[in-house]
Amino acid sequence: MRHFLFTFLLTSFFSRGQQTSDSLFIRSVYNEALSHGMSYEDLRSLCKDVGARLSGSAEAEMAVEWSFQKMKEYGFDKVYKQEIMVPHWERGTTEAAWITPDKGKMMKLNILALGGSIGTDGLLKGEIIEFSHLDELKKAKKSQVEGKIVFLNQPMNEQEINTFKAYGGCYAIRGFGAVEAAKLGAKAVLIRSLGLPVDDHPHTGSMHYEDSVPRIPAAAVSTEDAEMISEILAMKKANLSLEMDCRNYEDAPSFNVIAELTGTEDSNEIITFGGHLDSWDTGEGAHDDGAGVIHCLEALRILKTLGYKPKHTLRVVFFMNEENGNMGGKTYAKWSKEKGELQIAALESDRGGFSPRGFQCDGTEEQIKFLESLAYHFKDYELHIFEKGYGGVDIGPLKSEFDGIPLFGFAPDSQRYFDFHHAPSDIFENVNKRELELGAAAIASMIYLLDKNL
Amino acid sequence: MRHFLFTFLLTSFFSRGQQTSDSLFIRSVYNEALSHGMSYEDLRSLCKDVGARLSGSAEAEMAVEWSFQKMKEYGFDKVYKQEIMVPHWERGTTEAAWITPDKGKMMKLNILALGGSIGTDGLLKGEIIEFSHLDELKKAKKSQVEGKIVFLNQPMNEQEINTFKAYGGCYAIRGFGAVEAAKLGAKAVLIRSLGLPVDDHPHTGSMHYEDSVPRIPAAAVSTEDAEMISEILAMKKANLSLEMDCRNYEDAPSFNVIAELTGTEDSNEIITFGGHLDSWDTGEGAHDDGAGVIHCLEALRILKTLGYKPKHTLRVVFFMNEENGNMGGKTYAKWSKEKGELQIAALESDRGGFSPRGFQCDGTEEQIKFLESLAYHFKDYELHIFEKGYGGVDIGPLKSEFDGIPLFGFAPDSQRYFDFHHAPSDIFENVNKRELELGAAAIASMIYLLDKNL
Repeated sequence: MRHFLFTFLLTSFFSRGQQTSDSLFIRSVYNEALSHGMSYEDLRSLCKDVGARLSGSAEAEMAVEWSFQKMKEYGFDKVYKQEIMVPHWERGTTEAAWITPDKGKMMKLNILALGGSIGTDGLLKGEIIEFSHLDELKKAKKSQVEGKIVFLNQPMNEQEINTFKAYGGCYAIRGFGAVEAAKLGAKAVLIRSLGLPVDDHPHTGSMHYEDSVPRIPAAAVSTEDAEMISEILAMKKANLSLEMDCRNYEDAPSFNVIAELTGTEDSNEIITFGGHLDSWDTGEGAHDDGAGVIHCLEALRILKTLGYKPKHTLRVVFFMNEENGNMGGKTYAKWSKEKGELQIAALESDRGGFSPRGFQCDGTEEQIKFLESLAYHFKDYELHIFEKGYGGVDIGPLKSEFDGIPLFGFAPDSQRYFDFHHAPSDIFENVNKRELELGAAAIASMIYLLDKNL
Repeated sequence: MRHFLFTFLLTSFFSRGQQTSDSLFIRSVYNEALSHGMSYEDLRSLCKDVGARLSGSAEAEMAVEWSFQKMKEYGFDKVYKQEIMVPHWERGTTEAAWITPDKGKMMKLNILALGGSIGTDGLLKGEIIEFSHLDELKKAKKSQVEGKIVFLNQPMNEQEINTFKAYGGCYAIRGFGAVEAAKLGAKAVLIRSLGLPVDDHPHTGSMHYEDSVPRIPAAAVSTEDAEMISEILAMKKANLSLEMDCRNYEDAPSFNVIAELTGTEDSNEIITFGGHLDSWDTGEGAHDDGAGVIHCLEALRILKTLGYKPKHTLRVVFFMNEENGNMGGKTYAKWSKEKGELQIAALESDRGGFSPRGFQCDGTEEQIKFLESLAYHFKDYELHIFEKGYGGVDIGPLKSEFDGIPLFGFAPDSQRYFDFHHAPSDIFENVNKRELELGAAAIASMIYLLDKNL
């Protein structure tokens, strides 16, 4: 990152006049978001007029149209679409599963196929074998597992204060459970949903196959049903009957959708900020990541409405296909590099529309110190996390194309995120208006500070 | 507060060993709250097995029984009830109101009588006159207002980041609207609900009469209906028809409910912490203040479960009658003084069951510095507010009885509080399990630190 230390030193010693003008501008950003904000209505419309929008689906296509029109309406300097190719997986008819305890009555389970899974080709039946951790499965013998349906009942660690850490610690059962189970000859894999509450919503999400390992169907069961299955298996054997209609298609064309305010000094120097437009095909993708794209759209709208003339080009990107391929993020980074642009910073919002806590920086020590030096601007707005951390999936590929670029991740409160993540409950009604608006204001303020100080 | 500076200096220089043991203890507090916590189930039971519990009601009597039994179950050193006298107001049959625009069709409104209001003695009818601020009403002439129904349409200021400030700025329309309207000869007063979202839930709450001013009926209308009424009145005159059956009874006996862990060194030196057991008679009093009493009950349960032996007596008080009289708080403070106890600190939770942000201190500069010195214990738990501020209504009277006592207020995130406050939507389903548990853990940790360091 060019001149990073220099600009950091400069910002440390700027005048009192500058401080006051920053403080007034940030106050006007918050006032606009809270009193004349469009974020809540825009998110409502994205959730209700479009809905869930998995890459390659008709809904994703409509989401691209919705976004393009919305950005045009707001009258930004440039609005355009960037064509990309995305994976195309479909759930098909809703999946179903039943557990039948030995000599007992069958019970229907709340399940969702994992994204990318193959179907069952009719009803698939087998004895269930439970493992409480992926490592336990890895240590199992082929004779224990062969011909059975593996049930991975590894809960997220509720003792982690930041729920993303709990998610990270449990992610592998979803990502790699099918491969590990298939290596031992399992017929299918059923995982405990990656959600913190014990409730009846299954949570889907991406999973992987390996070329050298047979592909088996993979689904997630609600945490409540996971506990019930475990209780049954503690007493007796049980069989699972599973029906999944899902299938993979050829890659399909789709788009990132982009809006810009052109830089008045260095228009070829870009500050990219965004979230992902695609979502899983259940719920409405309200927190994941409707909130994130709307945060960034609203941030750009606020800066435009306040008449802010950026030094650098401020570019909002609605990335397509974060959930199952990240083709939007990968294509965007390459395209920008090939165009000869200079990406000077990037910011992502993909942790929900909750009350803002701060920002994290994936960057050098100097860049993290720079982020820390901005904290005082946000004290009155109750942001307190300004630290080393993660940027985001969509902006990640910028790092390999633009050496030294700092990536910033917006960090809202994480406590409720995994109540909704990839579940039917991720709907507009579960987003709070003020919390969403405060997120947009925090991001607009941060983009302003980045533009002024970089 | 005896020795405050001294203990503060001591805590600033304590050993690394002490730091580690504090850190381990606080971690065990959080683990107990998150993995074996009772707070969510206890709050469910209070909300569903008891429900709303206004002072003097049968439900309040059952809430006292519920609390006493629950504290007994947990096996604290002492559990007892403290008799107090409380006001007894009843809503009676549900109130109703209709607006009839000039030459238009009547429409029913979502209203709630304000607590303490007189009834209408049958259907009360009158022309509506709108004021957008209480100050505007105060400046009006008697000839404008006489014989009419005053509509106070003053919204909470959504630009305040902390929503309690917005509430404070608007409280007077509820507290004093009836008196100001009656001074000018109004027949009744209807206020815009003190809630931030525009929705159809009316929010009740306490109001006051003055002996020298005629008493008129007072009700709150939902913010959505307030906006509709205002739109109608911008175009034409309109009449309001109002029916309220509420009435005041003689004061009734009730109880504070109290549980203690006896101090092992100074059992006559008390750390009081609690919330209020009473609630308004709509919704279930889930955030206000079911969450607060359950926070404190759970904090004491956690400290007992972890085998903590306090130096001072740790006393949880479920105060009765915070909402319309504060007789619980007033009686408790006097009683403690008369018994010859020494109250060394008090803490209250009465701002909802949301994600914890920190603690405020109503105290001397030294005491506030002491609070600030505790902040680092909570960094890993995402608490960041350690500052001068408000304690709480219930513990307020301790200040006049115990000179120099520091009062601490638990400060959770405030963004959603005024969606639910005193409204039918303040129900258990709107409390998040993890957010509630983290509040209990934060309070248990703070009580531990106060006990160790005072």
